[in-house]
Amino acid sequence: MSFRILYECPDTGARIGELLTPHGIIETPVFMPVGTQATVKTMTPEELNDIGAQIILSNTYHLYLRPGHKLIEKAGGLHNFMNWKKPILTDSGGFQVFSLSNLREVTDKGIIFRSHLDGSKHEFTPEKVIKIQNSLGSDIMMCLDECVAYPCEYEEAKAAVRRTTEWAARCKKSHTGPEKQLLFGIIQGSTFNDLRKKSTEEILNLDFPGYAIGGLSVGEPKDVMYEILENIVPIMPREKPRYLMGVGSPDCLVEGVLRGIDMFDCVLQTRIARNGTVFTSHGKIVVRNAEYGEDFLPLDPECDCYVCQNYTRAYIRHLFKAKEILGMRLATYHNLYFTIQLMEKIKKSIKENKLKEFSEYVLQRYTT
Amino acid sequence: MSFRILYECPDTGARIGELLTPHGIIETPVFMPVGTQATVKTMTPEELNDIGAQIILSNTYHLYLRPGHKLIEKAGGLHNFMNWKKPILTDSGGFQVFSLSNLREVTDKGIIFRSHLDGSKHEFTPEKVIKIQNSLGSDIMMCLDECVAYPCEYEEAKAAVRRTTEWAARCKKSHTGPEKQLLFGIIQGSTFNDLRKKSTEEILNLDFPGYAIGGLSVGEPKDVMYEILENIVPIMPREKPRYLMGVGSPDCLVEGVLRGIDMFDCVLQTRIARNGTVFTSHGKIVVRNAEYGEDFLPLDPECDCYVCQNYTRAYIRHLFKAKEILGMRLATYHNLYFTIQLMEKIKKSIKENKLKEFSEYVLQRYTT
Repeated sequence: MSFRILYECPDTGARIGELLTPHGIIETPVFMPVGTQATVKTMTPEELNDIGAQIILSNTYHLYLRPGHKLIEKAGGLHNFMNWKKPILTDSGGFQVFSLSNLREVTDKGIIFRSHLDGSKHEFTPEKVIKIQNSLGSDIMMCLDECVAYPCEYEEAKAAVRRTTEWAARCKKSHTGPEKQLLFGIIQGSTFNDLRKKSTEEILNLDFPGYAIGGLSVGEPKDVMYEILENIVPIMPREKPRYLMGVGSPDCLVEGVLRGIDMFDCVLQTRIARNGTVFTSHGKIVVRNAEYGEDFLPLDPECDCYVCQNYTRAYIRHLFKAKEILGMRLATYHNLYFTIQLMEKIKKSIKENKLKEFSEYVLQRYTT
Repeated sequence: MSFRILYECPDTGARIGELLTPHGIIETPVFMPVGTQATVKTMTPEELNDIGAQIILSNTYHLYLRPGHKLIEKAGGLHNFMNWKKPILTDSGGFQVFSLSNLREVTDKGIIFRSHLDGSKHEFTPEKVIKIQNSLGSDIMMCLDECVAYPCEYEEAKAAVRRTTEWAARCKKSHTGPEKQLLFGIIQGSTFNDLRKKSTEEILNLDFPGYAIGGLSVGEPKDVMYEILENIVPIMPREKPRYLMGVGSPDCLVEGVLRGIDMFDCVLQTRIARNGTVFTSHGKIVVRNAEYGEDFLPLDPECDCYVCQNYTRAYIRHLFKAKEILGMRLATYHNLYFTIQLMEKIKKSIKENKLKEFSEYVLQRYTT
């Protein structure tokens, strides 16, 4: 067993667990910073270590197109290539093909698409994305899934559920080293409760070491997302990790943990940082705004990160106004630290049976 | 005395010295990384410490326009504002006014110019730039000088020498805290030997704790620059530091030290880094080029910096191709480390009376 539960909250679905991977143990619930192109934007691996990142996510679609998975294999795998010693999760490329590429054709066989970089033609099949992820050598791989947009017609969502199940079976079959790389299944079904249940049952039947919930946080209201979690998490096995893909903001992280989610990833933290927006203990602030021009407080006076110990809002605002890279670095560092600390506080609250109270504190400051 | 000579090479003009400043002692010859806008582009102060930077240069013109010297004064000075504890040298703003702004008028009183940022109108006088640098709180300040372009008419260069001397006298007079901030004089005279001598004599007469040679490395052939150094350095006092402004490349650093220069600054290292060009022990390489796509060597196999110990050319090339900020960070870190190490090797060679041999090694690899 690669996952074990250390503690379960008696009042909510929240739990604390340990996920064993080839590059180390991950304590859950966990937030995974996103390193799309073999780098978490602006950060070194040492800085990710400093802020307590346990695992990062990297994107198969991007790495396949550039620099190519074969190059990364030659470099000794993605860990070696980017100098990150801890666990890596790679997605299957499915979501990016549907959102970034010029999509040509989805068939039962796979997806033919054109690169968003140069228009070149490529095909992803379940077997191919497993092969690519084998080359990358990630600790956790994802099955190829069909992602539908929101909103979506019932029949389209239903067809995507069928294909996602068939592709998951083929992924599992073609993955020859399950002891070296964990392969997670992905549940689809858009916002239709019966399709979500059907997808969950079918994917569970295939027996993966972990299960992801895909196709959420794609534009639907948050309440709809929470409702789906409430419907399907209870039928997911207790003893396997549950990963809510592409989520989250501080409010979604606490709401997800309350509903039994163990793993999260999101580009929000790093993306808003590069635009000069940062998380604080009292909500988000846009530090590049004029009101911070003579503000000599840290980004978050209650934060003990490197950035908040050494720099003022006025200085960081200056860096943004002057288009200096250090501004993006400092904001990114702080936002990731803040989020990982938030997960630490969530874990502490679970252990103390106080997650409900703590979630109210977060939701007051972060519900939008 | 703020400067003392520890060792002089018997065969060349090279010497090793110590310059005492309010924020610490600088061992010379020294290369000063440039932090134009209160940040050495892409780097944190801790990283500058790691690579052995002893002093950085920051630009008065830029800081005056944005965020403004008054804001920096409110922040407790430039050291506090940017979180750099070691010495800082600020230039006078003269060079940037002549090269960046929309210049309106130079009179004996000062320079009226328009900001390159928003076209707003400003005036720099000798008294004003001292006041600005007092607000910044730099360890070493520079006198306002008139910089002429290359090539330049004799009469124009002559007028600039006269004004530079007059302005230097006014700068000295208006600087009320010489014990808190060292004020250096600047020698002008374009490429005319008699004007260079005249400027040197006039500036020396004003008695500054250090002397800079300005108006070089502005497009003239390197031989012309070296000839000027050979003509004026011998009439400069032995017991004062000599600073060659805006220089250099590895070849110019060794050529300058051979001719008795103690201090250098240059944006070359950080600028070419951001374009994917790095220094190595065997000359420059453009790591973003296709030939490094599958090159798993470090940037410089003979370098022991953080970057060369942890990353390959193939990875750094990928970062540049993917427009990832980490690529610029790693190349900048390496180029600055390489240059500071070069200065260490130059100092070692001076102590061992081997600078001539070492300079030939460098010039073979870096003369362009």
